[in-house]
Amino acid sequence: VLKLPKKMKKILKNLWNVGKEDPRRVIHAMKVGVALTLVSLLYLMEPFFKGVVKNALWAVMTVVVVLEFSAGATLRKGLNRGLGTIIAGSLAFFIEWVAIHSGKVLGGIFIGTSIFLIGSTITYMRFIPYIKKNYDYGMLVFLLTFNLITVSSYRVDTVIKIAHARLYTIGIGIGICLVMSLLVFPIWSGDDLHKSTFTKLQGLSRCIEACVHEYFEDKERDQESSDSESDDEDLIYKGYKTVLDSKSADEALAMFAKWELRNTRLCHKFPSQQYIKVGSVLRKFSYTVVALHGCLQTEIQTPRSIRILFKDPCVRLAGEICKVLSELSESIQNRRHCSPEILSDSLEAALKDLNSTIKSQPKLFLGSNLHRQTVEQNDTVSPLPLNSVVSLSSLRSVKKSAATGEKRRLRKQLSKIAVMKSLEFSEALPFAAFASLLMEMVARLDTVIDEVEELGTIACFKEYDKTVEVRVEKPVNLVVGD
Amino acid sequence: VLKLPKKMKKILKNLWNVGKEDPRRVIHAMKVGVALTLVSLLYLMEPFFKGVVKNALWAVMTVVVVLEFSAGATLRKGLNRGLGTIIAGSLAFFIEWVAIHSGKVLGGIFIGTSIFLIGSTITYMRFIPYIKKNYDYGMLVFLLTFNLITVSSYRVDTVIKIAHARLYTIGIGIGICLVMSLLVFPIWSGDDLHKSTFTKLQGLSRCIEACVHEYFEDKERDQESSDSESDDEDLIYKGYKTVLDSKSADEALAMFAKWELRNTRLCHKFPSQQYIKVGSVLRKFSYTVVALHGCLQTEIQTPRSIRILFKDPCVRLAGEICKVLSELSESIQNRRHCSPEILSDSLEAALKDLNSTIKSQPKLFLGSNLHRQTVEQNDTVSPLPLNSVVSLSSLRSVKKSAATGEKRRLRKQLSKIAVMKSLEFSEALPFAAFASLLMEMVARLDTVIDEVEELGTIACFKEYDKTVEVRVEKPVNLVVGD
Repeated sequence: VLKLPKKMKKILKNLWNVGKEDPRRVIHAMKVGVALTLVSLLYLMEPFFKGVVKNALWAVMTVVVVLEFSAGATLRKGLNRGLGTIIAGSLAFFIEWVAIHSGKVLGGIFIGTSIFLIGSTITYMRFIPYIKKNYDYGMLVFLLTFNLITVSSYRVDTVIKIAHARLYTIGIGIGICLVMSLLVFPIWSGDDLHKSTFTKLQGLSRCIEACVHEYFEDKERDQESSDSESDDEDLIYKGYKTVLDSKSADEALAMFAKWELRNTRLCHKFPSQQYIKVGSVLRKFSYTVVALHGCLQTEIQTPRSIRILFKDPCVRLAGEICKVLSELSESIQNRRHCSPEILSDSLEAALKDLNSTIKSQPKLFLGSNLHRQTVEQNDTVSPLPLNSVVSLSSLRSVKKSAATGEKRRLRKQLSKIAVMKSLEFSEALPFAAFASLLMEMVARLDTVIDEVEELGTIACFKEYDKTVEVRVEKPVNLVVGD
Repeated sequence: VLKLPKKMKKILKNLWNVGKEDPRRVIHAMKVGVALTLVSLLYLMEPFFKGVVKNALWAVMTVVVVLEFSAGATLRKGLNRGLGTIIAGSLAFFIEWVAIHSGKVLGGIFIGTSIFLIGSTITYMRFIPYIKKNYDYGMLVFLLTFNLITVSSYRVDTVIKIAHARLYTIGIGIGICLVMSLLVFPIWSGDDLHKSTFTKLQGLSRCIEACVHEYFEDKERDQESSDSESDDEDLIYKGYKTVLDSKSADEALAMFAKWELRNTRLCHKFPSQQYIKVGSVLRKFSYTVVALHGCLQTEIQTPRSIRILFKDPCVRLAGEICKVLSELSESIQNRRHCSPEILSDSLEAALKDLNSTIKSQPKLFLGSNLHRQTVEQNDTVSPLPLNSVVSLSSLRSVKKSAATGEKRRLRKQLSKIAVMKSLEFSEALPFAAFASLLMEMVARLDTVIDEVEELGTIACFKEYDKTVEVRVEKPVNLVVGD
């Protein structure tokens, strides 16, 4: 008994991690437990509320289904459930009334037909994107309630009484849910959305830093395989993956945040739409980061000896980009406007620096040809980094092909790589792509700044306070525009 | 009455489109209608099944909740519901048994405590990713059933009887759902996954074609603004967006497909995991497409006059890439292996062609400097396309800034653009990035082919039949590898 099996340990560790990741999950779980216990007490109060107990299952059902993680989600589901029940109840009552007044057989047929029609219509309507997004649960409740009432009342003939008791208990259930989610340790989707936004900016900043760091790293790492790379790789991958995958989660949070009236206190309205916009601009920005990451993984690489020539200006430019991203992140985090000098002069200087460095090395793009030829001559003697990369990847392909037993492709593979090798220009191209992507980032940064500033305006952020920030760097080159 | 308001018309059009997009939605809606009508008939059979009617609401509830769009989803939900109910019932029965044997007060406390503990534990467990993915609904049903039974039986003392009748009606409900979803116009998630995979390949192919087409288009279109572009833009954007956004949808389909045993008939097992792998490789491939699209939208553009020099080889290479993608798409669509000559010699020839064209224009990368200086001199007289682009975008920025009244950023903006203008090298870089991305695509194509061939092997695709395809082109250059 003392020695837990391995699987059990893993499960317990999983359970622990779930709570560690977000301790509010534990609180939410406790809240659900308390709410369910409260609802069960209804049964003990049979003497006081006679009609209630029979329908108490509706209160239990409501609590189980409606009490969601965040306040906004609970409000939304509660409203969906409430509206769905009321509308379905009214419709069921009307159909019941018609059926009772048309005789037993005709009434039965009428009820059957309406069940079919309403069932089909509602199911079909649930495919409409707008309804699917906002009222899917309400539609389900409507269908459920309508069928339950119609079918049972065909026997019982006491629709109004049932409906009354049911609404009453559902009301109790929703009431308990609201108290638990709004007053007891409330969890606000608006806060989550806010946090997710500035976390993404931080992540992107770290991701760009890691990318550039890895691109210019000195040591040759192909030999050690992907073991030591995994840390950096992980950081980069997570950085942009979080941003790229955030769309649906952010949209859900924004939808829930709409219901959280608390947020209107600070300003006119919680600007959930603007957060979505910032998110979508960030996604566009991160496409460039993905492409930058692609430069690290590409099969054809600019030799390290050439890359190293451009290390300093590239690292400097990337550093400036990261600084801007961090400043934006901080500005959102502290709900203040970002520094008016966010597009700092040092960014311009870094851009210029990279440009002049590239200009000072024209032999890279002209001379790669000659350079290549010399390499070709003593290829067998001492292979350059590039060659080792290419031959490594070709070896990998060969191994893979052989393993799947597809000999016919082997020849093709090799010949394709032979062509790639003979592309002298391809040595310079990847670095050009890398530099171009860095510059493209600077250009796209602008739209990100625009949207974040717009967010600051709509959400009534504090004015930027110079005294808080200590700027160490002096502007290097000041270029005054026309 | 005859003249419908505008909003009504829009809603009707929406409804129509939902059905037009996927006519199976209409069929599904009808199926739900029929299933609900069938379940309602249970009430008419009161004389035959005495115990059933009272609990018929469980059958209705089951049909409403379990009957999903595809067969796999229905099976999965049905199993979740069934298992959840049975386990919860057993547990509730055990707790009931303990409570009855411990006196009224102690029993009440015991039940209260277990409701709290089980409610909290289950809610907490629903946060575990594995359970959230596979058994979320089962957990909900468990919680619901457990609470309903525990609470109600504290009064009624007839747990077994209730559980029996309830299971019986839930069984009827699940039975109706299974018949409707497996036998009447079944909708298979496996087929959807299959279709989604080859559609994505087609989309990517069309997307690359449109990208290259737009990049080399002759006419200057900045003036006409984005109106005429929107068609092409839409095609490109949709092409890769479908691939990038497909992750969660594909994973859901694959999960449902696992339950669809029908698919095992053809082969050992439906290779849903392999479809997921193809999807993920395609996503990686499409990052390159996104970056390529970024080349069209970038603020700094290589002048059209220079781009045009490379039009033919680029278009040719892109054409070859698209040909490979289309072949892969067809191979999956017809469930046959792809052509052994998929990495055709013409692809190699196209690569070489692009390479030699770039080599023949070294002045582009060396001379952009000189070229730029001449332009600078007669800048005011006749601005080149590049200048018009830059000034257009700067104008746009100026207008925007002015509109938001942020004068302080205006100066910064202008000065930044001034720096960008002075980056002579930046004229050549964007095209280098474009060409590099095309080559990178060829390299990544390889992994896509690997995964698709793997899929063919696992899913027992037909052998490739040469006679079907009519190859018009002759291989241009045959390079035999070592």
